[in-house]
Amino acid sequence: MIFYDCSTAPNPRRARMFIAEKGLGIETREISIAKGEQLSESFRAVNPRATVPVLVTDGGIVLTENLAIAAFLEARFPEPPLMGRTPDEKGLVLMWNAIVEQQGGAPIGEALRNSHPAFKDRAIPGPSNHTQIPELAQRGRKRVTSFFEMLETRLTESPFIAGDVFSLADISTFVFVDFARVIKMRIPENNTASLEWFQAIQSRPSANL
Amino acid sequence: MIFYDCSTAPNPRRARMFIAEKGLGIETREISIAKGEQLSESFRAVNPRATVPVLVTDGGIVLTENLAIAAFLEARFPEPPLMGRTPDEKGLVLMWNAIVEQQGGAPIGEALRNSHPAFKDRAIPGPSNHTQIPELAQRGRKRVTSFFEMLETRLTESPFIAGDVFSLADISTFVFVDFARVIKMRIPENNTASLEWFQAIQSRPSANL
Repeated sequence: MIFYDCSTAPNPRRARMFIAEKGLGIETREISIAKGEQLSESFRAVNPRATVPVLVTDGGIVLTENLAIAAFLEARFPEPPLMGRTPDEKGLVLMWNAIVEQQGGAPIGEALRNSHPAFKDRAIPGPSNHTQIPELAQRGRKRVTSFFEMLETRLTESPFIAGDVFSLADISTFVFVDFARVIKMRIPENNTASLEWFQAIQSRPSANL
Repeated sequence: MIFYDCSTAPNPRRARMFIAEKGLGIETREISIAKGEQLSESFRAVNPRATVPVLVTDGGIVLTENLAIAAFLEARFPEPPLMGRTPDEKGLVLMWNAIVEQQGGAPIGEALRNSHPAFKDRAIPGPSNHTQIPELAQRGRKRVTSFFEMLETRLTESPFIAGDVFSLADISTFVFVDFARVIKMRIPENNTASLEWFQAIQSRPSANL
């Protein structure tokens, strides 16, 4: 297998943490988004959609998209389960993963990509250019504030995002929350349940790769 | 189990098709988005995020989000498989499902919700109001054009979206393509592979509920 990673971007980090939590060592190639390597001809021969992460499976299948990589690895290497054991748990993990993608990952990405000069004309990842929409950056910041509130409510009632055990949903949430530093937003200091959860996840070896 | 549906909206339709393809009959309650019933106190007691679809499982768990409902049903009622049999297939189904959500579902939704008067201040589903951003509607239409191109390329090389068999990815794609009529966009008439695929899916009983 080959894993195409990028050490500075949140989506590859989610896959990197998932691989580490599975205890797997996979041959890894770094694609520098800062240098625009994801748009190079050689990388687009691997993934025409010009995004990282990518996992080439042992069957030679090219998987882009975090959820695809997670679903493959969960089926291929079931232990430890990171996407739920029972049907209810499997549903809850993907539910919370979708919620934090929509309410956290998306607005953080929108706030960054529609305001920072480094993303001029790169408001959406992938091969096509899109101009920045400043209103979308503003809306993004407002939604991230709501995301932190939602997270505090959830973590006051549940030890982990999707329930009683660590899962893919914690990986996604942790990576988004940590990445929000790029738009200078952090868990508010009174959100004690969120801060405790964040520290616990941060202390896992998979969070420090 | 109880399924909260809305006959006019694309996301509940995806869950409705998935349930039908599994051959299941689940007690269904209609939530009219036109009447704003998703924002009612009684529905928000079920789903505080005020979105449909929702599935209350036989274990009493409340699942919102299409992918959560699909993952639960796939684990609980494995036959016929709609999310892949092998690890590679499972990865490919979720990969294509994510691609068509991002490149089709999202821009169609953005084009509609940021332009149509019925969605004034309702640019994002859920309990919070968000003003429309006209530039996002324009960008959405442009991206839907690219989505139809991408789809034609894919369906020229593969009989179904995620490979050789019908899957969740076909359900999502079919519902998005059909829903694009609300922004007056359709598969271009020269895209013969896409049109053939669309007709094949449309002839399934699950597409006519």
